[in-house]
Amino acid sequence: MTRRERLGEFELIARYFAPLAKGFRGARGLKSDNAFLAPDPRYDLVVKTDTVVAGVHFLVDEKPQIVAAKALRVCLSDLAAGGAVPFSYQLALSLGTNWTERWISGFARGLAADQRRYGLALSGGDTTSTPGPTTISITAFGHVARNKGLGRDGAKEGDELWVSGTIGDAALGLLAARGGMESAFLERRYRLPQPRTTLGPRLVGVARATADVSDGLLADAGHIADASHLAVHIARECVPLSAAARGVVATKPPLWANVLGGGDDYELVMAVPRRKRAALQAAAKAAGVNVAHIGHFARGKGVHLTLDGRAIRPATMGYTHF
Amino acid sequence: MTRRERLGEFELIARYFAPLAKGFRGARGLKSDNAFLAPDPRYDLVVKTDTVVAGVHFLVDEKPQIVAAKALRVCLSDLAAGGAVPFSYQLALSLGTNWTERWISGFARGLAADQRRYGLALSGGDTTSTPGPTTISITAFGHVARNKGLGRDGAKEGDELWVSGTIGDAALGLLAARGGMESAFLERRYRLPQPRTTLGPRLVGVARATADVSDGLLADAGHIADASHLAVHIARECVPLSAAARGVVATKPPLWANVLGGGDDYELVMAVPRRKRAALQAAAKAAGVNVAHIGHFARGKGVHLTLDGRAIRPATMGYTHF
Repeated sequence: MTRRERLGEFELIARYFAPLAKGFRGARGLKSDNAFLAPDPRYDLVVKTDTVVAGVHFLVDEKPQIVAAKALRVCLSDLAAGGAVPFSYQLALSLGTNWTERWISGFARGLAADQRRYGLALSGGDTTSTPGPTTISITAFGHVARNKGLGRDGAKEGDELWVSGTIGDAALGLLAARGGMESAFLERRYRLPQPRTTLGPRLVGVARATADVSDGLLADAGHIADASHLAVHIARECVPLSAAARGVVATKPPLWANVLGGGDDYELVMAVPRRKRAALQAAAKAAGVNVAHIGHFARGKGVHLTLDGRAIRPATMGYTHF
Repeated sequence: MTRRERLGEFELIARYFAPLAKGFRGARGLKSDNAFLAPDPRYDLVVKTDTVVAGVHFLVDEKPQIVAAKALRVCLSDLAAGGAVPFSYQLALSLGTNWTERWISGFARGLAADQRRYGLALSGGDTTSTPGPTTISITAFGHVARNKGLGRDGAKEGDELWVSGTIGDAALGLLAARGGMESAFLERRYRLPQPRTTLGPRLVGVARATADVSDGLLADAGHIADASHLAVHIARECVPLSAAARGVVATKPPLWANVLGGGDDYELVMAVPRRKRAALQAAAKAAGVNVAHIGHFARGKGVHLTLDGRAIRPATMGYTHF
């Protein structure tokens, strides 16, 4: 690393990133090599790392505020799936050669807004330059009650499959963002995830297994089934769609493949025992999030999709991993 | 992210990365979205993130085992400076388009070897592809006794400045790697850092402030001075050099600038009160690392270099941040 570049790094940190660490004692103002997190023995520390790359995970001309929010929120979505309340994060920012201070400023404003929104503080990180596209890796930290963290494994035969919010908006929104259709609502759902941070922590003691919908509903429900050594059955007619998505698949039924197989919804899929149904509905109400019962877990393996009780053809399944 | 790429990601994780998480319960076999770290209330969790980019921080044709070791060790060096014993890490791996399974396999072997060497387990991460150069961000975790973590601030007027090992080998080794000179020893010192993980934790209660030498001796001693609101005085004749480096600067004195201003030594610089000198020497002996007394902290600001008692010209200082 050249001296000149490092000089810039120190200035950038002082001007744009140190303010994001203010008030978080263990960050030591980003002036030491390390961050120090004082543990609370009541909780497990929940940790998630995600990377987003310009041109791969976000559009290269995306606003820096949105890039910041997306990079952070994809991690927060995973923490929510784990039942955790987020509190801090580390930022590894590799800046492409054409970066401007204006971009950094917008990026830092985006982080600041989400820090307020989700109750976070920056605890440390690294800023480098890259001859490639701007790349952001975030490692986010949350708390969950000791040994109560939720994972993909743990679903039992007979558990119900539930999902939060609406499915498919982001995949259709990506088509919209690329000019394939017109819908400000869908495009926004793709550009700016809304992680279910209010619902996730309320699932502890309610759901037996969870995942966030980042690979697509079929894939992520399938991950729970695989990890739990079960099959999952999904009734397509029960999958909750937004009015916009309903309109799209009504006119273009092949786009059901995108709805069920596309990623980036950042909703939660959950395996919930029948006797916890009322508890789930109460949790969802308290969280201000809709939940829908879309299927169940059974002996066997794989993902089984039905429409009004009839198995439907695997063309739709081609988008999944198995 | 395309389905095809994600398929590859799942296979890569199962084949090469899940074995690195084996035995670390909170990693859940890398099959859940999150890692869960159970806190020990006797310790603070020490966290450090570093990014290395192909062609910027390592040579593009570097062996993947060496790349893995370097990416991990630059973080371990920071943890050592904090007084922490490392135990786990998160890996964000963005693979350039020309990656091969052979490269990944070598990279994973390099991680495995260093996991054994330093007592680490992989706890989670993210694998993506990038149209740019391969980029690796590691967030490493260590433990230090509660509230005992070392930082750059805390040096007091009159404290002695000490440094571990030898200085300048890496900067000269970079010249060697680029073909500017011939020295297998120096080149190895550049390619493969040896973080002072045995010394760092022994500095708790001995040193008042520490940093690792990653930006260069003058710069990193200067960071301690700045953070401690003091000046630091360094006697060049006391700076410990390897036999190879001594030979180089004897024939090419201008390369003193590289020795004192070049980075990547991954030694430790320490502010140590005089009454702790014997404790430091005992710690160094137990750690199997040499330490040298090279200067002191005083009222004022900045970095002041002397040679046999005379201030020497600031041309040498041009490589630092201030």
